[in-house]
Amino acid sequence: MPLPHRVKIVEVAPRDGLQNEKAFIDTAIKVELVDRLAAAGFQNVEAASFVSPRWVPQMADGAEVMARITRRPGTLYSALTPNLKGFEAARAAGVDEVVIFSAASEAFAQKNINCSIAESIARFEPVAQAAREAGIRLRGSISCALGCPYQGEVPASAAVDVARRFLALGCDEIDVADTIGVATPAKVRAVMDAVTQSVDPARIAAHFHDTYGQAVANIVAALETGITIVHSSVAGLGGCPYARGATGNVATEDVLYLLRGLDIDTGVDLDAVVDTGQWISAHLDRKSASRAGNALAAKRAA
Amino acid sequence: MPLPHRVKIVEVAPRDGLQNEKAFIDTAIKVELVDRLAAAGFQNVEAASFVSPRWVPQMADGAEVMARITRRPGTLYSALTPNLKGFEAARAAGVDEVVIFSAASEAFAQKNINCSIAESIARFEPVAQAAREAGIRLRGSISCALGCPYQGEVPASAAVDVARRFLALGCDEIDVADTIGVATPAKVRAVMDAVTQSVDPARIAAHFHDTYGQAVANIVAALETGITIVHSSVAGLGGCPYARGATGNVATEDVLYLLRGLDIDTGVDLDAVVDTGQWISAHLDRKSASRAGNALAAKRAA
Repeated sequence: MPLPHRVKIVEVAPRDGLQNEKAFIDTAIKVELVDRLAAAGFQNVEAASFVSPRWVPQMADGAEVMARITRRPGTLYSALTPNLKGFEAARAAGVDEVVIFSAASEAFAQKNINCSIAESIARFEPVAQAAREAGIRLRGSISCALGCPYQGEVPASAAVDVARRFLALGCDEIDVADTIGVATPAKVRAVMDAVTQSVDPARIAAHFHDTYGQAVANIVAALETGITIVHSSVAGLGGCPYARGATGNVATEDVLYLLRGLDIDTGVDLDAVVDTGQWISAHLDRKSASRAGNALAAKRAA
Repeated sequence: MPLPHRVKIVEVAPRDGLQNEKAFIDTAIKVELVDRLAAAGFQNVEAASFVSPRWVPQMADGAEVMARITRRPGTLYSALTPNLKGFEAARAAGVDEVVIFSAASEAFAQKNINCSIAESIARFEPVAQAAREAGIRLRGSISCALGCPYQGEVPASAAVDVARRFLALGCDEIDVADTIGVATPAKVRAVMDAVTQSVDPARIAAHFHDTYGQAVANIVAALETGITIVHSSVAGLGGCPYARGATGNVATEDVLYLLRGLDIDTGVDLDAVVDTGQWISAHLDRKSASRAGNALAAKRAA
């Protein structure tokens, strides 16, 4: 399949990228991060999470972040909502899109939430219904769709099954996530080919982690199956909880560099993203995990 | 084009990976590195460089390295030889393959050696003749074949021209190198398609740097054009002299992880390479630049 001419990038750093940071990050920094990303031209920024602060203390200030950001016309602000309480908080905060989630791995679902995949998705029915009634966009995220830390291989049929259930709940968009970054291009092709037989490829997003250095190659494979939505995190923010010290989300700068080289339009200003990646990495007192980001910053400094 | 069933990896860490290290690395460490890599199953290890120690002091002990390693049957040991003097030293040291080189960029050739590409290649005629007479394998490396720090874009025809000249000199193998790691898959495909119209793809190697995070995706693109030889460096050893602080050679662990996922045989033991990558990184007092290497090591430690 020929590559697309345009790709939508969902920038996930403010939520997926920061949620596991140990030291609490000032709300002002989170607000600046979201605003810088929106200003760089992203159509979609994952800005907050409305989960219990006991579970994810880093995300406790979601409502304040949403209240203080400068809403940019043309940018859609998303938030994770694990239940109806979270949904109501997200709606009150003016979120454009809420995200529900499930693993594609039964072993993962049992181990983490002590129920089956089907049960875990059924629990989101009230959120889905509330989103429909409120006219808020609904996204479903399928974690461990390409591999699982407990069961290892996950069959493509498992991702297809979860995707169909999300579609039945009314999801506008569905993420196929390689949560632990284990996939290689052949696996990506197999899973995306299977999923896009049941769901319009225009609704499917590739959410890949770079834990094993495969994410950019995996994105190319996904684009070749007709996928046109890609998740990424500026500076590669976000770790891999199943391999401490390893990298997490694919870096936005690396993805933008790829897409520019492939003549694929994103509407995003790579230079502004490089600046933002260097800025937030400096704030977190670490070197950016983005290779393109570091190379472009070094070239600029030279 | 379908992917190959088998790929030869040329492990370049002992030469290309270490040559720019500032602090001199003990000969014993270099010897252990070469021996560990050969034992891991590599068919070809770039073990030394016979250049003037005034130019590359780190490589001054090439003859001693060659004398002290344990030659493994089935492994071919290569060395860089910039001139006849270097060739004679390499031959005396028992090297199996000598490597000559040229840029594909006129701007690079003029800036670095103050002559044209054609002149620089003509200077290798005595080395090529001596290698033929001695029955020593000859490899030609085309640097800046996918981009140049001075002129930027390098046309595919420039790499084709250098490849033809190397072929005329009697080269058994020719490396198409992305010295500054700027390529994306579309560029790789264009250059490899052009080069393989003039040279048997079985003789062409992909030598990619991961400076912009594109190397693994670029290797997939190269394999899809019929290339079956890939260069890589354990732990991603080797920097990018044109972007200080940026990463250099693609990490062998990342490449092996990719190829294993694509069901492509290499004959190399990934676990042994992960160990070697962690060992040499610890010796150099830095974190390995290999994502797969770090993830696999972290997983093992957990």
